[in-house]
Amino acid sequence: MAAIDMDCLLVANRGEIALRIIRACRRLGLRVVCAHSEADRDAAWLHLADQAICIGPAPAAKSYLNIPALLAAAEASGAGLIHPGYGFLSERPEFAEAVEAAGRRLVGPSASVMRMMGDKVEAKRAMIAAGVPCVPGPDSVLPDDPDAIGRIAAGIGYPVILKAAGGGGGRGMRVVRTESELADAFMVTRQEAGRFFGNADIYIEKFLERPRHVEIQVLADAHGHALWLGDRDCSMQRRHQKLIEEAPAPGIDRALIAEIGERCAASCRRIGYVGAGTFEFLYEDGQFYFIEMNTRIQVEHPVTEMVTGLDILAMQIDVARGKPLPITQDQVRSLGHAIECRINAEDPQSFAPSPGRITAMHVPGGPGIRMDTHVGAGSEIPASYDSMIGKIIAHGGDRDEALARARTALAEARVEGVSTNIPLHRQMLAEPGFSAGGVSIHHLEHWLETRKSRHA
Amino acid sequence: MAAIDMDCLLVANRGEIALRIIRACRRLGLRVVCAHSEADRDAAWLHLADQAICIGPAPAAKSYLNIPALLAAAEASGAGLIHPGYGFLSERPEFAEAVEAAGRRLVGPSASVMRMMGDKVEAKRAMIAAGVPCVPGPDSVLPDDPDAIGRIAAGIGYPVILKAAGGGGGRGMRVVRTESELADAFMVTRQEAGRFFGNADIYIEKFLERPRHVEIQVLADAHGHALWLGDRDCSMQRRHQKLIEEAPAPGIDRALIAEIGERCAASCRRIGYVGAGTFEFLYEDGQFYFIEMNTRIQVEHPVTEMVTGLDILAMQIDVARGKPLPITQDQVRSLGHAIECRINAEDPQSFAPSPGRITAMHVPGGPGIRMDTHVGAGSEIPASYDSMIGKIIAHGGDRDEALARARTALAEARVEGVSTNIPLHRQMLAEPGFSAGGVSIHHLEHWLETRKSRHA
Repeated sequence: MAAIDMDCLLVANRGEIALRIIRACRRLGLRVVCAHSEADRDAAWLHLADQAICIGPAPAAKSYLNIPALLAAAEASGAGLIHPGYGFLSERPEFAEAVEAAGRRLVGPSASVMRMMGDKVEAKRAMIAAGVPCVPGPDSVLPDDPDAIGRIAAGIGYPVILKAAGGGGGRGMRVVRTESELADAFMVTRQEAGRFFGNADIYIEKFLERPRHVEIQVLADAHGHALWLGDRDCSMQRRHQKLIEEAPAPGIDRALIAEIGERCAASCRRIGYVGAGTFEFLYEDGQFYFIEMNTRIQVEHPVTEMVTGLDILAMQIDVARGKPLPITQDQVRSLGHAIECRINAEDPQSFAPSPGRITAMHVPGGPGIRMDTHVGAGSEIPASYDSMIGKIIAHGGDRDEALARARTALAEARVEGVSTNIPLHRQMLAEPGFSAGGVSIHHLEHWLETRKSRHA
Repeated sequence: MAAIDMDCLLVANRGEIALRIIRACRRLGLRVVCAHSEADRDAAWLHLADQAICIGPAPAAKSYLNIPALLAAAEASGAGLIHPGYGFLSERPEFAEAVEAAGRRLVGPSASVMRMMGDKVEAKRAMIAAGVPCVPGPDSVLPDDPDAIGRIAAGIGYPVILKAAGGGGGRGMRVVRTESELADAFMVTRQEAGRFFGNADIYIEKFLERPRHVEIQVLADAHGHALWLGDRDCSMQRRHQKLIEEAPAPGIDRALIAEIGERCAASCRRIGYVGAGTFEFLYEDGQFYFIEMNTRIQVEHPVTEMVTGLDILAMQIDVARGKPLPITQDQVRSLGHAIECRINAEDPQSFAPSPGRITAMHVPGGPGIRMDTHVGAGSEIPASYDSMIGKIIAHGGDRDEALARARTALAEARVEGVSTNIPLHRQMLAEPGFSAGGVSIHHLEHWLETRKSRHA
């Protein structure tokens, strides 16, 4: 068991975000250790770390979700910092607690803040208290009383949506359009919530018909400073999985966004938030409605890095090390526009994962183009994990230029040996609705449906 | 023979710059045709073009320098525009004339301007007339009269340098430190100049002991507008080959650079220059001295793209198509700092080329990093050509951040199967003199000498 070294960081994740964390550690001069599964034994990013420690077999429960194995890797290597990335253990308060109990520091907020934000009802209550606008609906879970629920729903006005307090990412939700559906919908959602999330609490909200997904990136230190680093539009989603993200959100009054951003930063200061985080909102008819906070780094953070020039990962690690934020809010700039396309190894028609070996790959470049990828020719894409193999990010002086550069980069990107969604991205970037800007979260699915029926 | 299509561009070059030109054509929506040698038949960039035409065997004289074969490829494909890239035919007035005679348009200035700038004495005369500062020395070639030469040299003051009027890139030059060496040095330089450049004319200049290489990027349209897009420092050279370039040049008074930049732009307007170009200067003791103009795009143009946000290649093609410049001088911004490292397939100790097949490659990414490369795992690096296989460009908010990001990118860059100068770049980026900024053009060679003697 090595002495705890606060200049050594354990990466408790894999793939693209593991590489991104390694890059930030190199930038900061930290020693970096990667925990990895047996399936990732030959992964290329491990060569870029100072040390790689195998923590178990491929199923995530036995490796990337295995808290004792991760802490053992931290002990063996002496890593004083642990970065959970996104997904896996990144929003699990019990991991934050275990890391703290082991005398180490998680790159993320405290377990108690994580717990509060992980509970939709508690999070909403905290947001209302901080003046962050929320979707109309009570800030408490529904009683198990059909008459009372009916009165609450009527007060909000149909359609409404029922959500499991412990859910997220589009799971545990049900839209109710008329009073007659309400009682049954409540029962089913409640049963599912108990089964899937171990928490049968349900809350209710106004359902928005054609909202956009707009989010605010925040970063807060342990000295009471919090910044908002701009907004992102992530409305291009399929089954709640974001595919294209951009910064800033097109066509929204910048003064309104600044007001929302300030409230998000204020709420970070209020709840003692430390680290990088994202306030996710629905946006419809000029109004923002808070939906949830992600208490971790997000896949789409590079679009914010491109327009601000900041290294958000390095700053996130620095605040976890106790350093004060190096800039003030008025030093946060937003220059031009950035668009990110998530490249997944999947069938572009069926969206089924496409594991296998990459036989050839061409990484696009040129002005304004950044590609973050952990794979190359010869890499094996395991079937066990998320199918994302990289992100192409395009930056331009304005949205049209960013779009044109993204199209150019997608036209030249090439991955052989596995199927990817590169052809789908090429189509999406040429699609008039998205090109015009400001589409709703349903746009992509509608477009895919139309495409399917055209081909049928 | 296809009809001449002014929306179709023939790439009369190979490698990294061929790919860069393809990217610009995609950006502009132009059809793009690549002329290639037999040795490049399987090159990856050809797949990104709309058409590829083999123009002859590997020796450049039979392919990339073969004007009739290139014009035949333009005729066969209908390409109305021809981009010469850098090197090869890019500064040959006879190519510009042949292209024009074939009813097509070269992406570059006219043959007459190219001819004027290709002759050092004529170029210097034009610069003096335009108020661009030059190295002290007469603006005419030396007479074949030892006494007269002695008087001229004494008037300038030793050391002086003798230069072949038709030379360039460090060839055909000789430093003379005392009067006693002068006559012999003149004879030898004159003989070499006649033999190598077909032009025995020699001129003389003040020799600067420890200058820096600082250059100004210009871009001019056919409507009398000319811009300067900032400056670059390319002092990190070995045998006149640039290895590391940066923008802007560190530690030089910005008002002075702006004055020089304005004079360069004014001189473009004066001589009717159209296209991208670079005014190269020596800089010593607060003074700029014009040395030559490159009438083409340069390898190091990306550092200027990073700080200005512009796509210089696309703009260069647009002005060749007769479009007016889309911005004015006050819209040219310079944001932060950028550093480029040229990655060559060569032995890092001996600098001998290292042809062969790349077996594995990792392209760095992350915030501020752009890598432009035409190769990947599986690519064959032919022995016939320039050994450059890519460029890593790092952008940051200031020079320190750009340097730190460049170091991070170089630390992770990996090319296997051939030797590269990546280890050398890692050392250079860590070297205190370069890190401090403002080194002379001799710095790198001195450092390499010292390293050699340390290891001896």
